[in-house]
Amino acid sequence: MDALLPLKPNEVPFVGMAHMRELVNTIGIEFFISALAQAIEADFLRWPSFDKTARVAAHSPDGVIELMPTSDGHQYAFKYVNGHPQNTFQGLQTVTAFGALADVKSGYPILLSEMTMLTALRTAATSAMAARILARSGASCMAIIGNGAQSEFQAIAFKALLGISKLRLYDVDPAATQKCRANLIPLGFEIECCESASAAVAGAQIITTITADKQLATILSDDMIAPGVHINAVGGDCPGKTELAKAILERASIFVEYPQQTRIEGEIQQLDPDHPVTELWQVLAGLVCGRTEAGEVTVFDSVGFAIEDYAALRFVYTQLAQHPLYDRLDLIASPSNPKNLFGAMVAPAQMRPPESAQLAVEMLGL
Amino acid sequence: MDALLPLKPNEVPFVGMAHMRELVNTIGIEFFISALAQAIEADFLRWPSFDKTARVAAHSPDGVIELMPTSDGHQYAFKYVNGHPQNTFQGLQTVTAFGALADVKSGYPILLSEMTMLTALRTAATSAMAARILARSGASCMAIIGNGAQSEFQAIAFKALLGISKLRLYDVDPAATQKCRANLIPLGFEIECCESASAAVAGAQIITTITADKQLATILSDDMIAPGVHINAVGGDCPGKTELAKAILERASIFVEYPQQTRIEGEIQQLDPDHPVTELWQVLAGLVCGRTEAGEVTVFDSVGFAIEDYAALRFVYTQLAQHPLYDRLDLIASPSNPKNLFGAMVAPAQMRPPESAQLAVEMLGL
Repeated sequence: MDALLPLKPNEVPFVGMAHMRELVNTIGIEFFISALAQAIEADFLRWPSFDKTARVAAHSPDGVIELMPTSDGHQYAFKYVNGHPQNTFQGLQTVTAFGALADVKSGYPILLSEMTMLTALRTAATSAMAARILARSGASCMAIIGNGAQSEFQAIAFKALLGISKLRLYDVDPAATQKCRANLIPLGFEIECCESASAAVAGAQIITTITADKQLATILSDDMIAPGVHINAVGGDCPGKTELAKAILERASIFVEYPQQTRIEGEIQQLDPDHPVTELWQVLAGLVCGRTEAGEVTVFDSVGFAIEDYAALRFVYTQLAQHPLYDRLDLIASPSNPKNLFGAMVAPAQMRPPESAQLAVEMLGL
Repeated sequence: MDALLPLKPNEVPFVGMAHMRELVNTIGIEFFISALAQAIEADFLRWPSFDKTARVAAHSPDGVIELMPTSDGHQYAFKYVNGHPQNTFQGLQTVTAFGALADVKSGYPILLSEMTMLTALRTAATSAMAARILARSGASCMAIIGNGAQSEFQAIAFKALLGISKLRLYDVDPAATQKCRANLIPLGFEIECCESASAAVAGAQIITTITADKQLATILSDDMIAPGVHINAVGGDCPGKTELAKAILERASIFVEYPQQTRIEGEIQQLDPDHPVTELWQVLAGLVCGRTEAGEVTVFDSVGFAIEDYAALRFVYTQLAQHPLYDRLDLIASPSNPKNLFGAMVAPAQMRPPESAQLAVEMLGL
């Protein structure tokens, strides 16, 4: 068991929304994202040491609920995350997430955390980490198509890691674009709000697509993509949900997290199962080339992978020693004799006399 | 979204160990298990309406960590559970678990709960539910081989559902047997502590095996099993971990929860992949026969299935309206504009001026 934090044997630290907000603001969001990107990159560099599996998805007419586990043999992490594009019409988040970190040796959880905000932060950190090695050097202008809940996090990550200062925004909902602009102007971005996706991409060296529609949409068509552009395709992330025209993919160099998952969920679900793609970790590790020429179109077909969540949970966990921004959950049974769960948990004096099962059922109103 | 409980938009109810203990003792453990068995049976009767998948296991030298999801299209549940037999030597539980219930329409979690105790309760409830239709009628004596953390829960469930009043106990650790006896005597059981597994099974109409060793062990050999006995095989629940001699399985009628999972994890991993087994839900639903003659040996090869956890979480959730034994977790982002996660969660005034990624990393000591 890890003993980083001063906890009782029954306690697991829990980082809720308010604490995560305070942690991000205490560290500073740009610092937080930069350090998180560093943590994610460190774990991508030891990619072969992780157990990897495509996430376990439960699809329904309104959305998807997924579990994303991984382990390096020392710590285990999983995330619960949903994707429900219609939620915003009820005033709810499209994506809500939480997760846990556990000690592999004992199987005990050592952290529970909100991950709605943490997912936005790690997705943005991963996007910028990828773009830093795939985009042309000197990129200064990014188009963001889709200006919803995750858009500002993407902008800040690209500012922190690549120095992107100019943004061209477009969303089918003009109010979303104005919200994004209002949030980002105070951070020193130079922002242009555009009338269409094609207007937004004009002159941008990087294009981020991060729309929420759960359908085969063509947010970007082939004629919109100039030579040398890097496309950070974030929104297409489940079966039947894509954002890019197939023709773009056919002429681009495509980089992915975990091919087995991306072929099901990513933009490349439009392509043959054997269409060549490159694993991002291999580029980071220097095992294969990323961009090979200035005119090449590169696509990071990002669907999100469990190792990013593992890195994010570990990052938060290590910060808690210095910033004790957590509650204590009474989650672990800790009888003095571990074989005596019953004696510790059930108070015999309070037990009622035996009755028939049927009576119990009637009393409980089942 | 379900609105059973009076919660703020950011809150999810959390049932910790102390609250679960209080809930069980308020309802009464026999009542609780009886009602829980009823809830589990109701969900087994609508088995085809659930999404089913074998649990996702991460194996390590010391144990296993598993995620067990399922959904009926209206609510979704998952459990995190480990199995680490060596934990007891460090004073830790072999099995620790927690889980969540979620609304499929929105993807939002509606309950988080400890499940260490709830797993012991639902496992016992499921065992007794199966024995009630598989054991010979009039059974009054049960042998329990393995007297660890789950043994008392099994005894109480069989008392509540089948009227079992006589127990014959055996464990390789005599202290575990004495602990089990001391816990159960006050509940009115007639108990004999035995020197061996073969002594324990003599005269018992039902045999429960619930040992924790993670190995191919032979807790029960063929010559120990008299005609007509029902075996409730609970302890063999992961690859390489079994408790019964193969010869017993070859002459018994075998009943399982979800064959795809049991063939990997259960006693039947010793048999050919096409060895006939019967799905328990079909017996409960009256679609196929259970026991057909008095001399038949029946085996419930129980490994635990996600639908049992779904039923248990739903049962706890419905009880909370009457018994508000929960904390409120600050788990949900609830900005007034759902597309403005950033504006609600990040305080711009507190943001530091932009710095290089490297500086951030240095400051955070990564």
